[in-house]
Amino acid sequence: MSIRIKETKGGVTAARGFEAAGVEAGIKYKDRTDMAVVYSQVPCIGAGTFTTNVVKAAPVLWDRELVEHAPFLQAVIVNSGIANACTGEQGRNYCKRTAGKAAECLHIPENSVLVASTGVIGMQLPIEKIEKGVELLAASKEAGIDAGTRAAEAIMTTDTVSKQAAVTFEIGGKTVTMGGMCKGSGMIHPNMCTMLGFVTTDLAISKELLTKALKEDVQDTFNMISVDGDTSTNDTLLLLANGMAGNPEITEENEDYETFKEALRYINTTLAKKMAGDGEGATALFEVKVIHAATKQDARILSKSVITSSLTKAAIFGHDANWGRILCALGYSGVQFDPEKLELSLLSSAGEILIYKDGTAASYSEEEASRILSQPEVTALVDMKSGEESAAAWGCDLTYDYVKINADYRS
Amino acid sequence: MSIRIKETKGGVTAARGFEAAGVEAGIKYKDRTDMAVVYSQVPCIGAGTFTTNVVKAAPVLWDRELVEHAPFLQAVIVNSGIANACTGEQGRNYCKRTAGKAAECLHIPENSVLVASTGVIGMQLPIEKIEKGVELLAASKEAGIDAGTRAAEAIMTTDTVSKQAAVTFEIGGKTVTMGGMCKGSGMIHPNMCTMLGFVTTDLAISKELLTKALKEDVQDTFNMISVDGDTSTNDTLLLLANGMAGNPEITEENEDYETFKEALRYINTTLAKKMAGDGEGATALFEVKVIHAATKQDARILSKSVITSSLTKAAIFGHDANWGRILCALGYSGVQFDPEKLELSLLSSAGEILIYKDGTAASYSEEEASRILSQPEVTALVDMKSGEESAAAWGCDLTYDYVKINADYRS
Repeated sequence: MSIRIKETKGGVTAARGFEAAGVEAGIKYKDRTDMAVVYSQVPCIGAGTFTTNVVKAAPVLWDRELVEHAPFLQAVIVNSGIANACTGEQGRNYCKRTAGKAAECLHIPENSVLVASTGVIGMQLPIEKIEKGVELLAASKEAGIDAGTRAAEAIMTTDTVSKQAAVTFEIGGKTVTMGGMCKGSGMIHPNMCTMLGFVTTDLAISKELLTKALKEDVQDTFNMISVDGDTSTNDTLLLLANGMAGNPEITEENEDYETFKEALRYINTTLAKKMAGDGEGATALFEVKVIHAATKQDARILSKSVITSSLTKAAIFGHDANWGRILCALGYSGVQFDPEKLELSLLSSAGEILIYKDGTAASYSEEEASRILSQPEVTALVDMKSGEESAAAWGCDLTYDYVKINADYRS
Repeated sequence: MSIRIKETKGGVTAARGFEAAGVEAGIKYKDRTDMAVVYSQVPCIGAGTFTTNVVKAAPVLWDRELVEHAPFLQAVIVNSGIANACTGEQGRNYCKRTAGKAAECLHIPENSVLVASTGVIGMQLPIEKIEKGVELLAASKEAGIDAGTRAAEAIMTTDTVSKQAAVTFEIGGKTVTMGGMCKGSGMIHPNMCTMLGFVTTDLAISKELLTKALKEDVQDTFNMISVDGDTSTNDTLLLLANGMAGNPEITEENEDYETFKEALRYINTTLAKKMAGDGEGATALFEVKVIHAATKQDARILSKSVITSSLTKAAIFGHDANWGRILCALGYSGVQFDPEKLELSLLSSAGEILIYKDGTAASYSEEEASRILSQPEVTALVDMKSGEESAAAWGCDLTYDYVKINADYRS
């Protein structure tokens, strides 16, 4: 992080004018919150990226339409427990009913209300409970960091921790704040963005630049994480900007725009890594950095291929420097390269070790390699020695608990 | 199987003139055999398909050269325990030394000896033990079904059972036999063929047609299985034909060629399914059949996308009819389709049940679905209602044991 961006507390309510709430609607879980609202006191412009899965959940269709065509956006209603995916016409009507109810309770237009759902595919939402939940949300929403935290908790499914990040930065003499929350630990292999992510800012910026920045940023943040290779039906990332920081509106790609992009990169990277590290059953955040690749696209493909290799992920769980699996995953990525040219190192807070060089194993200590891999965050560094481009991808290890969680997720 | 093809006993030694052996060379395992030979009493023509991984093991490079350019082939030396992959110049020299030793012991040319290795990547072969093993193999090779079984056992790694198949068929009034063996239960996601497979036949056929038939066949057999999505560095499928059945040589694509292709399809499908069902840690063979797809390629991509979905595989392990994961995997396959048009059924020896129709869940009993999924072989049948093409893919469930095996494979 450069000196231009400062980390701060909170998430979606860190920026001026944003309120939130998390309530218990009894959708599927017992004794926990399962609905959240993110609300702006004034109209926002918004940008969004959505799943590329052909099977799109109803809320994805609803939001995509609004992000493109609605004159402004002002609230997001989220539920966990049921994904409202593969629910046909009825599922689509339930999005409209949810937004309609929120419009009524919050006194804003129906087409300014985004909706998002996460959970089991194929079940219909209990719409009366949802509507009751919207009433509760409207009555309890408030500003402040705690309200944002309650929202971040309510959108969790198999997540073990809630995920938030926030920063401040200066634009035109004004302090701007940006914060976000996300959820997701299974069915995570975003090919557009990830399960559910919500970022808010009080920045004044044109919709065109907000959209452009988000689309570019996800390529190197949310699109570079994977827990299990399954691209969800519900992947949604929303970015809302309400302009309340009072900065002169950013309308061109100047230095202010670069500062904003840097802040966005920091928020999205932080949230994406939190998601990867909290992958279902994970005991470690596994990072793969590819440097000196011939092209940016090569670097992305190579790093993502390793991060999604089940065999590599299982080896990380076993703290086993089974580097052949990493070489193998690089090799089947589809990128052409000379395997005898690259170098592979493993690193973590416990040290750094060169593992592979000149086409075969470097001389290293298995004990030291295992000690490095025993940390909660481990990195495989791949030097392709073929060019100037680099990329990073984030995932997690493959564990017994991943199998346990997913063998009886619905029960 | 049509009436033209008859199942018979044995594997690589089922066909006339083929001998085999399996011996203990002490490469990596204790108290088990780890080297095998397949030998033909007379010179063979051969065809092969190999991994598409950029990181190719030394034996793959050796064999590819021989299959293309050697005037004839007569033996294959296989070892398990060490893959001879990522072993640089030394690894390549070891292939030559292995073939050279076999040539000396078997009194055949060095460039008629194929080699294959499977096991840990990155370790050098203990070449003296390998050479001693070749001597033992040459001294103990013999004809007969039992010798073939010993070879099939010696090439196993984490396989729990050896895998063989054989058939007979009539060509030009002569009985022709074809048999094969294969191994592989981890790092199985062939993108050309699979870990190691060896098929022998006494058929007389031109090399051109042998090669053509093999290349076509693997698209719908070995290339349609997946255990964990990792395409190995060593994938090799070899097909040897020695002509000893005495049939008039097949030199054109006539009815005899069709009979041969049918036999090859049967052998390869049988071996491929055995491999998928014996996937690391698997408790079930999971088959995905896609019918009425718009194109053959669509059918293949759709079925393979489901078979490789970690979430779906975990649900199969849990006997959970979590069909949303199947829909999701179809959706992110890259194939365009209307999700509200297709139908999904689950079937096994315990029955058949319609699960999804008209864009949402069909009304079915979860108990019955779970009973169907509790069988050792289960099928998901996807009717795309978009055309006339179909394909099948085979995989297995994702279990605790998969993680266990791969978290400490090297220890």
